[in-house]
Amino acid sequence: MYSKRFYTLSGSCPDQVGIIARVAGFIAEHEGWILESSYHADDGSGDDDARYFMRMEVKADSLPFHLAEFRERFRPLAEDLSMNWKISDSAVKRRVVIMVSKQEHCLYDLLSRWQSRELDIEIPCVISNHDAFKAFVEWHGIPFHHVPVKPDHKQAAYDEIARLYDEVKGDTMVLARYMQILPPELCERYPGQVINIHHSFLPSFVGARPYHQAYQRGVKLIGATCHYVTRDLDQGPIIEQDVIRIDHSDSVEDMVRYGKDIEKAVLARGLRYHLEDRVLVHANKTVVFR
Amino acid sequence: MYSKRFYTLSGSCPDQVGIIARVAGFIAEHEGWILESSYHADDGSGDDDARYFMRMEVKADSLPFHLAEFRERFRPLAEDLSMNWKISDSAVKRRVVIMVSKQEHCLYDLLSRWQSRELDIEIPCVISNHDAFKAFVEWHGIPFHHVPVKPDHKQAAYDEIARLYDEVKGDTMVLARYMQILPPELCERYPGQVINIHHSFLPSFVGARPYHQAYQRGVKLIGATCHYVTRDLDQGPIIEQDVIRIDHSDSVEDMVRYGKDIEKAVLARGLRYHLEDRVLVHANKTVVFR
Amino acid sequence: MYSKRFYTLSGSCPDQVGIIARVAGFIAEHEGWILESSYHADDGSGDDDARYFMRMEVKADSLPFHLAEFRERFRPLAEDLSMNWKISDSAVKRRVVIMVSKQEHCLYDLLSRWQSRELDIEIPCVISNHDAFKAFVEWHGIPFHHVPVKPDHKQAAYDEIARLYDEVKGDTMVLARYMQILPPELCERYPGQVINIHHSFLPSFVGARPYHQAYQRGVKLIGATCHYVTRDLDQGPIIEQDVIRIDHSDSVEDMVRYGKDIEKAVLARGLRYHLEDRVLVHANKTVVFR
Amino acid sequence: MYSKRFYTLSGSCPDQVGIIARVAGFIAEHEGWILESSYHADDGSGDDDARYFMRMEVKADSLPFHLAEFRERFRPLAEDLSMNWKISDSAVKRRVVIMVSKQEHCLYDLLSRWQSRELDIEIPCVISNHDAFKAFVEWHGIPFHHVPVKPDHKQAAYDEIARLYDEVKGDTMVLARYMQILPPELCERYPGQVINIHHSFLPSFVGARPYHQAYQRGVKLIGATCHYVTRDLDQGPIIEQDVIRIDHSDSVEDMVRYGKDIEKAVLARGLRYHLEDRVLVHANKTVVFR
Repeated sequence: MYSKRFYTLSGSCPDQVGIIARVAGFIAEHEGWILESSYHADDGSGDDDARYFMRMEVKADSLPFHLAEFRERFRPLAEDLSMNWKISDSAVKRRVVIMVSKQEHCLYDLLSRWQSRELDIEIPCVISNHDAFKAFVEWHGIPFHHVPVKPDHKQAAYDEIARLYDEVKGDTMVLARYMQILPPELCERYPGQVINIHHSFLPSFVGARPYHQAYQRGVKLIGATCHYVTRDLDQGPIIEQDVIRIDHSDSVEDMVRYGKDIEKAVLARGLRYHLEDRVLVHANKTVVFR
Repeated sequence: MYSKRFYTLSGSCPDQVGIIARVAGFIAEHEGWILESSYHADDGSGDDDARYFMRMEVKADSLPFHLAEFRERFRPLAEDLSMNWKISDSAVKRRVVIMVSKQEHCLYDLLSRWQSRELDIEIPCVISNHDAFKAFVEWHGIPFHHVPVKPDHKQAAYDEIARLYDEVKGDTMVLARYMQILPPELCERYPGQVINIHHSFLPSFVGARPYHQAYQRGVKLIGATCHYVTRDLDQGPIIEQDVIRIDHSDSVEDMVRYGKDIEKAVLARGLRYHLEDRVLVHANKTVVFR
Repeated sequence: MYSKRFYTLSGSCPDQVGIIARVAGFIAEHEGWILESSYHADDGSGDDDARYFMRMEVKADSLPFHLAEFRERFRPLAEDLSMNWKISDSAVKRRVVIMVSKQEHCLYDLLSRWQSRELDIEIPCVISNHDAFKAFVEWHGIPFHHVPVKPDHKQAAYDEIARLYDEVKGDTMVLARYMQILPPELCERYPGQVINIHHSFLPSFVGARPYHQAYQRGVKLIGATCHYVTRDLDQGPIIEQDVIRIDHSDSVEDMVRYGKDIEKAVLARGLRYHLEDRVLVHANKTVVFR
Repeated sequence: MYSKRFYTLSGSCPDQVGIIARVAGFIAEHEGWILESSYHADDGSGDDDARYFMRMEVKADSLPFHLAEFRERFRPLAEDLSMNWKISDSAVKRRVVIMVSKQEHCLYDLLSRWQSRELDIEIPCVISNHDAFKAFVEWHGIPFHHVPVKPDHKQAAYDEIARLYDEVKGDTMVLARYMQILPPELCERYPGQVINIHHSFLPSFVGARPYHQAYQRGVKLIGATCHYVTRDLDQGPIIEQDVIRIDHSDSVEDMVRYGKDIEKAVLARGLRYHLEDRVLVHANKTVVFR
């Protein structure tokens, strides 16, 4: 954990000789101090072309220029490498909109982490299809929007959600056990920005009532999955997963209770990886530079 | 999870032939419906005499009498078996006093579980040596007592804590990352009632700053331990433990962050086992009937 | 671990008042010393009628009669309870036939446990569709049968396997990464006797090449499942499962390597639970009294 | 997993600007194709000076020269960076001497991995203070040396072990549950070459009979630790650890059995990390580039 401001450069490009040398060379040339760096070469055995992934944290005050100039100077090199990249500034807080329904465990957990600055983010608002947590959220000084999702007027609700998200300039939307399925258009409007926590160890038990499905199948471990939301339900790129042991004596209700602990921890880890630009998506899979 | 009221009978006695038969026979004789039952025979290989442990949940309305009469009728049998026993009623909520300092993760977590009735308990008050969480606790409608622990007046503080605990008729005291060491007299005044969450995988890293100790030793997993508090610091009977993997790239701050998730989950599980009379203590060890 | 001989009584029946009292009463009446006992009431929330499961270990020399007489005396009570039951004798070694193909990790692992008497069983023979491990198996003094499974003569091969299994009076058949799919008739001929280790966390990645499927989906944990073989491929009752963490840097080959360790451990645990009559099957699920 | 030959360059040096740029630049300049690369900057918060760790795999045939020339050309740069480094060739098999006593689980496990070429090493010999596994080891075509360690002649035994190890040009010595304590002189003669598997989650339960210690303390998880052997018993740098859950019903014997599975897996992972030059030691801790 660095007390100092730093920039995070991350991206991917087709693999070739000399990528690290050129990127690290660019940074060293300007006396940039690399705090942390990670690389991964996917050799394409998964039917894709070989691809190179990278992430670096550079101490901000070790560089002789600011982000805008970094971007301009780095662009030619990135273009030459056909790199898909971005750079972010640790001093600029991410703006995370939280979506909830009637279960509070993930909401309490996220607000606790925000309160203690473990999650050093802005939460411009919480949106819910119920008003159960209005007072709790507002007590924390965070605006709360009740946007009911009625069977006959779903589109209007989703339009309102998009409007609110745009209005507060959200850059990440967290479905913290938000029990509604977002329409494909909404998912595609914010690619790589919408994060869900699914209460099963995907790809097992897609869809509704996964703990009931797990109970019926008699599995000996249950889990949770944090993933990006895409137009295909529960099929998006997986960011993080975990499991916990259960046995025959556990009822569905016991599984729900154990599961909540996994959901909270997996969502929090996945969200943090995302916010720190540790997650690079390619071909429906993620590279996560822990 | 039973929608109906039930009684939980738990205890231990020297092992001999026929214990289950006699106890289960007593219940069956009165048409008692056993919902769940667990037994454990410790053969004494750990230098003790062989001892028998048991726990049963009996549907309340299957019995022709109430708890007081159950106690009276069961007593002769228990005495004959030299059994150390108790019986509790699911309709009577346990009274749990929470002690905190300046870290909120366990507090938020416990209140979230209480709010959702996952933990179906009374929290008659929260006591802290700081006033950081006064407003948050009171917002939940729970009384908050600020009892500073000053180096020169520790005894007065501990006397006040005992007074408050007695006044609200607490039956369980949870040290939810309460960073003060309770004096031996206080620990012994409430045997088997005070539960602590220690932020290491005991017996490794007893005492202060366990994550720093873990960092220095270079361990590859860190953990947390929920245990009963006794007069010997961090030496009480262990109720529950868990761990999470770390690696060389994790700083002490990262370890603290990962550790908090383990602390919350382990404390919540350990506390629930305790509240449901699933934990039987013998010779500084626990039998936990999950 | 008991140095003395013991009997294991296990079974299940429709739930009602007094089952434990009557069964434990029967044993106590004959001065039987119960070493270990486990009970489970399934309340039928999973669409079934409420059912009761039990398992007891009774010290053999504490009873005034042998197994045959126990069976005869216990039968009326069991019939009265409509119990599905069996009793086995720790002095009678189970006869386990191991089936392998060309991967050795499970075979070495099982023979190591047999050699050290951790698995105190007879291995009357090993059967394989390849002859790769003939010398290794025979070096251990165990007969090895090479039964090739040719596309055009599969039935003959399976008939030969059944003949060998019957001939050696096998009571358990372990598919220790035996890469052939047994025909439904064979599965049904030995219900509850054939145990498979599947190299995925079922129900994810049924069928062939599960590690490749897991790689494509980008999961963050891989697992293995030990289950009874039924006529439906990879759908039988699950006995034991476990997982291990992987990340984006792990190739399919790495996953195979990590997976083998899970396969060995899960198969060994599942097999032991089975051999010690700890597994009770009901409605395609298992109760495992660990 | 690369079908092609590669070189592994690993090392550490004081941290400064431009290390990656210079090292990766050197490789790129010669058209070296980097297959995998890992870096870690330790900021010295653990009381040490900031230090930089690195590991790279370079495709052998992408370079225009062989290892000897690589070494010569790289030396000036390494000296300039005050780097502690080495480079190894995937085509040269490591020579691993296995030491055992009377427990076979780790021996069977290592030979199984060697047999299947999962561990692609030479095992020039197995040394034991007992002759229990002589026939088993020799059946695999591996020389076996019985070197008894008698109370009065320990030094002679350890001299013989060193002589055998030197004679076969061993580069790694694995104590695969070798129950003797090596004398300090032997440990220091082969620094970073001797790997032990200790049957506890260190630093808990140092020394003899750790499962008995764990049983007495009533822990809820048991573990194993793979570490380099130094002159201080069980205090060397930790390479890998893992744990498994137990409960009150598990006897010491059960713990031993569960523990063996952890020991095998942890030793195998730790050994592989070591053999692939993934482990860099500094200040009694390890950086493990998984």
